[in-house]
Amino acid sequence: MAASYQVTSVGHVRGGRQAAVDDDWGRSRARLELDADQFTAAALAGIEAFSHLEVIFLFHRVAETDVETGARRPRGRADWPLVGIFAQRGKARPNRLGLCVCRLVRRDGLALEVEGLDAIDGTPVLDIKPVMRGLLPRGEVREPEWATDLMAGYW
Amino acid sequence: MAASYQVTSVGHVRGGRQAAVDDDWGRSRARLELDADQFTAAALAGIEAFSHLEVIFLFHRVAETDVETGARRPRGRADWPLVGIFAQRGKARPNRLGLCVCRLVRRDGLALEVEGLDAIDGTPVLDIKPVMRGLLPRGEVREPEWATDLMAGYW
Repeated sequence: MAASYQVTSVGHVRGGRQAAVDDDWGRSRARLELDADQFTAAALAGIEAFSHLEVIFLFHRVAETDVETGARRPRGRADWPLVGIFAQRGKARPNRLGLCVCRLVRRDGLALEVEGLDAIDGTPVLDIKPVMRGLLPRGEVREPEWATDLMAGYW
Repeated sequence: MAASYQVTSVGHVRGGRQAAVDDDWGRSRARLELDADQFTAAALAGIEAFSHLEVIFLFHRVAETDVETGARRPRGRADWPLVGIFAQRGKARPNRLGLCVCRLVRRDGLALEVEGLDAIDGTPVLDIKPVMRGLLPRGEVREPEWATDLMAGYW
């Protein structure tokens, strides 16, 4: 049985790119600004000791009516296979959750300057977690050819 | 300004461990069962081509009143530093979102058998994404000593 839950933005992406283009995110810098009504700087204490962060965010520009629940071709490319929405990372997905590993450049009070976050200006942030080496994939990571092709120009 | 959004479970963790113990998750096997009212097998088409999945889930056993919004010592360990909730991965966190990379063992219709998922039986699943090599951390991953210590017995 499906159940629904409420989540609340803990902050927002400020700066960076204005449009959700497909490629060249590597040099993009932005700030993650925590909501000052909910948090103090204590929520980020010690975060500078980590080089990378995982950010869970909401693809807020995707209309709920556009969400795909079956299969589609990644980026609509006719030369890539029809794959399920959970076998790809397209943004028009159930719950519209985005997830990205980015590099932490600097902390500034309630804000984090990050590099390589593939979320646009104004994106609601739902969680920030530090990347721990012990949580990276264990064993060889295997992927289909279309996924390798898709990432070729991403950063 | 904080904004709230509704998310709905896309499925549940079935089997695996019954209690949220801290360590030894590596050999844990469980099934991710998609909700048959929302999805058909099309939603998982092609997923077998990936070796690893990222699963976003809800720490549903954490009471909202127990959520930490400031700093705490990971696992309450006096010998580890007081760090912000976004500088650690403790489950009593804003929005109670969990995130784990696990290995895909087998697909069976609307279910995925996985290994090394650190979520207990009955956990609501909010998203499943394939791990792509191009989205792993770029550059050396640096972490504080307590994080390395914490992960020592995790898998």
